[in-house]
Amino acid sequence: MRQFSVAMLGFGIAGKAFAKILLEQHQAILEETGFDVQVTAIATGSRGALIDPKGIDLVWAMETVERDGHFDVTHPAYSNLSTMEIVDQAEYDAVLELTPINFTDGQPAISHLEHAMKRGKHAITANKGPMAYAYRYLRDLAKERGVCFFYETTVMAGIPIFDMAYHSLRYCEVREIRAILNATSNYVLRRMEDGLDKEAIYEEGRRGGFMEADPSNDIKGYDAAAKLTALMNVLMDAGMTPADISIKGIEDVTPEDIAAAKARGNKIKLICKGKLVDGKPVGSVQPTEVPETDPFCSEGVFAALTIDTEYLGPITTLQYGTETPVTGYGVFIDVCRVLREAGWQ
Amino acid sequence: MRQFSVAMLGFGIAGKAFAKILLEQHQAILEETGFDVQVTAIATGSRGALIDPKGIDLVWAMETVERDGHFDVTHPAYSNLSTMEIVDQAEYDAVLELTPINFTDGQPAISHLEHAMKRGKHAITANKGPMAYAYRYLRDLAKERGVCFFYETTVMAGIPIFDMAYHSLRYCEVREIRAILNATSNYVLRRMEDGLDKEAIYEEGRRGGFMEADPSNDIKGYDAAAKLTALMNVLMDAGMTPADISIKGIEDVTPEDIAAAKARGNKIKLICKGKLVDGKPVGSVQPTEVPETDPFCSEGVFAALTIDTEYLGPITTLQYGTETPVTGYGVFIDVCRVLREAGWQ
Repeated sequence: MRQFSVAMLGFGIAGKAFAKILLEQHQAILEETGFDVQVTAIATGSRGALIDPKGIDLVWAMETVERDGHFDVTHPAYSNLSTMEIVDQAEYDAVLELTPINFTDGQPAISHLEHAMKRGKHAITANKGPMAYAYRYLRDLAKERGVCFFYETTVMAGIPIFDMAYHSLRYCEVREIRAILNATSNYVLRRMEDGLDKEAIYEEGRRGGFMEADPSNDIKGYDAAAKLTALMNVLMDAGMTPADISIKGIEDVTPEDIAAAKARGNKIKLICKGKLVDGKPVGSVQPTEVPETDPFCSEGVFAALTIDTEYLGPITTLQYGTETPVTGYGVFIDVCRVLREAGWQ
Repeated sequence: MRQFSVAMLGFGIAGKAFAKILLEQHQAILEETGFDVQVTAIATGSRGALIDPKGIDLVWAMETVERDGHFDVTHPAYSNLSTMEIVDQAEYDAVLELTPINFTDGQPAISHLEHAMKRGKHAITANKGPMAYAYRYLRDLAKERGVCFFYETTVMAGIPIFDMAYHSLRYCEVREIRAILNATSNYVLRRMEDGLDKEAIYEEGRRGGFMEADPSNDIKGYDAAAKLTALMNVLMDAGMTPADISIKGIEDVTPEDIAAAKARGNKIKLICKGKLVDGKPVGSVQPTEVPETDPFCSEGVFAALTIDTEYLGPITTLQYGTETPVTGYGVFIDVCRVLREAGWQ
């Protein structure tokens, strides 16, 4: 039995979902792999931090933060270290970057991953900023330092797109990507079909807890563009940033547009498209009319991805809205993958 | 540079497609992994066999078999050994089981894989018979002998379903499977929607080279049942055979049934369903009305799979009809996966 220590940067929805799955599967992993996976540090922006080299009691951590809104300052594990200080000083084998994305330049998440890898630690990100702004640098750094750099959660939240690409499309060119990547904007478009106006939909989404107070980054296409960039960087080695993408959000889509599309047998979806033209990345995010018979228009579809491949032709993957903690599972399988590379067969 | 030797049992469509991809990617694999992948034996039922421990010239092998219908009996590499003798006597690191499926009991393909693994060789099957009739035995044998046993091609021909399950669904229960797994019967149903009668469709399929002289195993649901069994055995550890599946093919579906479904906004598809009920496998293959808006009814969809999972909710994968050699690629990625386990990082 060997302890495998994890430092969590961020303890929001994804972090707590990961903690819950780890608690459920801890014993199964231990029995199968011999690794005792423990969270030895949790850093947050405003709730304080916890550090315990033997492993933090996650049930207690979730309870106190939900009850009090912050960790217990009187507890011996409580720490005033900043997130970057935890990256630089705490004891851990893998860092989990779970902080909110910065759409401007991906920082400070890029530095978190960079500092961890330079200390010889494995790096996992659920934050797509680093994928959009520094993928090649981080990939090459991981290779140079002999550590893992995984990011399954950043696109389609846990559906194993990147793992499939790594293992099964290694010698199979990905020629084109077509996708619905931002669930929020597509929820808005779907509810507009029901006749609701945008403000009422935003209010409904906030009440349901699945829309942010300011949903601009979703509505304006920035979130979708960051994900498309991540996909193109990994699947096509595009070496690009969101600045290379032509972005139009759904802010100008009117009820009249929706009705006109419907009259033509179509629905409006925020479609992401990407390919290389003469080796140069060409990507777009824009509201697009899609035939109602297209799988992208199927009832309940939350996110959708079609990759056109050299040997397998097009492959479509559909993700549905669900109450399950998808994002937490994506991080969890990245941790399992690190365990495998670190000695588990 | 180390030679990695492969013995091919069967040299039909899948075998030749594999050979073609290997030729295209041989240099790339060599550069990335250090493995010089060579085919050292090819066994066929009626075209003779070839054995060359240094590696068979695949271009020449494909040319002669296409020109003459059999291998060149005067060539030094020519051999009269039977398929089983090649399994037992030839030099190779991995065997590729590419012979036609036996729907009754999966033999002799099961014995081919068994004999190879007992010699300490890795085993790859594109033949779903062994998956339907002896999966647990072969899986456990591989574990006991410390060799790989891979089978990506057996369901959805190369779309990496099993690899995804192995790497990414390890701690995530698969609760239910719903799928279209037999392309031929679904092609027939689709063409019936166009008003053609079955015999005309069979004739069209034979002319196009994608339907067998006797398509009974497709039409009667046996092929779909073998694939559903393979999926349930791997994803749910069902420990079952096709005898545990309630099978009804499309032989009794009439133009009137198709028209009646259409009037209700539905299409008829040959749907496979499987789950465990109190630990016991419950599976069915039967013609089923599906709403036209279901992704399974999308234009061009060739095969479709929805797995309902514990942590990720339902995930749908769609495969499209394509001219690309999908089956050959599935075998190829299994070979790459063996290389990785055999020392390539």
